[in-house]
Amino acid sequence: MTIQAISWSPSGAVRIIDQRALPEAEITRDLESAESVAEAIRQLQVRGAPLIGIAAAMGLVTAMREQRTASRADFLTRVKELAALLGAARPTAVNLRWALDRMLRVAEETPGDAADLWERLRSEATAIWEEDRAMCRLIGEHGLPLLADGINVLTHCNTGALATGGIGTALAPVYLAHDQGRKVHVFVDETRPLLQGSRLTMWELVHAGISCTLITDASAAALMRQAKIDVVLVGADRICANGDFANKIGTYGLAVVARHHGVPFYCAAPWSTVDVTLADGDLIPIEQRSPAEVTMIAGRKTAPDGATALNPAFDVTPARYVTGFVTDRGIVQPPFSEGEAQS
Amino acid sequence: MTIQAISWSPSGAVRIIDQRALPEAEITRDLESAESVAEAIRQLQVRGAPLIGIAAAMGLVTAMREQRTASRADFLTRVKELAALLGAARPTAVNLRWALDRMLRVAEETPGDAADLWERLRSEATAIWEEDRAMCRLIGEHGLPLLADGINVLTHCNTGALATGGIGTALAPVYLAHDQGRKVHVFVDETRPLLQGSRLTMWELVHAGISCTLITDASAAALMRQAKIDVVLVGADRICANGDFANKIGTYGLAVVARHHGVPFYCAAPWSTVDVTLADGDLIPIEQRSPAEVTMIAGRKTAPDGATALNPAFDVTPARYVTGFVTDRGIVQPPFSEGEAQS
Repeated sequence: MTIQAISWSPSGAVRIIDQRALPEAEITRDLESAESVAEAIRQLQVRGAPLIGIAAAMGLVTAMREQRTASRADFLTRVKELAALLGAARPTAVNLRWALDRMLRVAEETPGDAADLWERLRSEATAIWEEDRAMCRLIGEHGLPLLADGINVLTHCNTGALATGGIGTALAPVYLAHDQGRKVHVFVDETRPLLQGSRLTMWELVHAGISCTLITDASAAALMRQAKIDVVLVGADRICANGDFANKIGTYGLAVVARHHGVPFYCAAPWSTVDVTLADGDLIPIEQRSPAEVTMIAGRKTAPDGATALNPAFDVTPARYVTGFVTDRGIVQPPFSEGEAQS
Repeated sequence: MTIQAISWSPSGAVRIIDQRALPEAEITRDLESAESVAEAIRQLQVRGAPLIGIAAAMGLVTAMREQRTASRADFLTRVKELAALLGAARPTAVNLRWALDRMLRVAEETPGDAADLWERLRSEATAIWEEDRAMCRLIGEHGLPLLADGINVLTHCNTGALATGGIGTALAPVYLAHDQGRKVHVFVDETRPLLQGSRLTMWELVHAGISCTLITDASAAALMRQAKIDVVLVGADRICANGDFANKIGTYGLAVVARHHGVPFYCAAPWSTVDVTLADGDLIPIEQRSPAEVTMIAGRKTAPDGATALNPAFDVTPARYVTGFVTDRGIVQPPFSEGEAQS
């Protein structure tokens, strides 16, 4: 029912579903090098903060296969180079850096030769993936009490099975509520410019048999005014110590209109999304993507020649708009401290 | 510089620019019957509340050409049939009904035979168009003081020359400020699902040499939080007696975020948009358009099979969010009464 966004191929490559091709085609790709994993992340073949962390960790393992006979020193030099390459693929999501830092630390701390290090990296990458799957389930369980039978949820972008190694973050409570037989309806923001809501979230929910309705991003406020939305559930790409968080562009506007209408607004994300090194949201680097994503759709020009466009991938929502953070440790409130965030 | 959205063809047909084809192609169509005008309105080849009023009035004249030798009674019967057909093309914009009612009244009040009635209708349709052009200029002049040199404007949908018989409604002050040498920058919401901002407003502004930046609809809130927007100017499809108004879906959300950030929010529209028969916004009929406009883009499926979508063409913004209504009679405040609205 729920799809599997990532796995190992028989040859040890990183096997992904190419999310750019959805919903028109379900294309599986085996990524054989760090470069191809970085490219897949950059092109959003693989996206979603948790999933790109997993993909990067697995990509490191795949790429280091051929270094198993190198010297320990050469292995460590090379793994750092490739981690830097993978880490530069996208700047905003903290999970990417978090997963790569964890892999590098493990490599350095593991005794033995290159083959030993590689085996350790392989089990660490698998552990990151399995922890992510467990994390998704915990977020789902902690968020489940928010979803009474008959509830109408609004979500933005894709925070489901396609964004993680498991059943998602903000969609995890929806999957569990549905599994338990509760009636849940999900209004899905299409999420321009790349339409992750339309292409991916709708695809996941339709596959899972969960009742859902697609809307344009600009329709959400009118639905709230009509009292058709009971709760907003969004994900996060990075959460600061004070609770400000970055998520897909449009999240901040949803938070403002939700507050205006008294609709509870929850951010669901794993603890690994918390970056206690950033005091507040002004410090989050915001990825600026190509204007062509806005001026063209499906290869067709939708703006005139000479048109310029702004295309920030994310916006920052201050903590004060958030009813609660649904995490694998429960529903929590900022500030978040170093001790809590490390687990 | 500013384009002309509608005119008479030499044969007396209604000549339009097919706005569906912009910005890729500039296609002129001559509409020879009431059915073809109604179809053009329904398909949004012609759109914008003032322009569809003009198009309907002109379409009535074009269609009645062949009734000039009919009896007076037959002429009047036929003109009412065609007005009903044209009036049903789109339900929300009051201008359509207003223009058709005016044409019918004139036909009934004019003495003489069918040829006399037709000549009278022809001059009335031309008068509606010329009044619209004058109205645009007046809105521009009344709105001009809102646009200080160096200002950053946010607009939604298309309210310019392509929406009217003249220089537009919400864009009229922008055109006049630019003509006077003031520096004005316009942030343009792309306006999903039909992308009138991207396809039409950007096209008009780029043509006119006015500085502009395209954004996705969901980016507006983040720009306001960054204090990059000084004023919001939107149009209206129908304004109620109490000042509640219907406009392109997404307008209400903009109004909420503008108020939240203390950004002035103006609705610019002709007096003919005021419908004093409607006490408040709950009474405005909202056109529900095809879900396919949301689930497909440029002929390409962007949502999975089985996906359902909501696609209201408009939303309602309560009067309390509006800083002022920029009209051809000045910047005014509700309530609006019968006496004022008739001119």
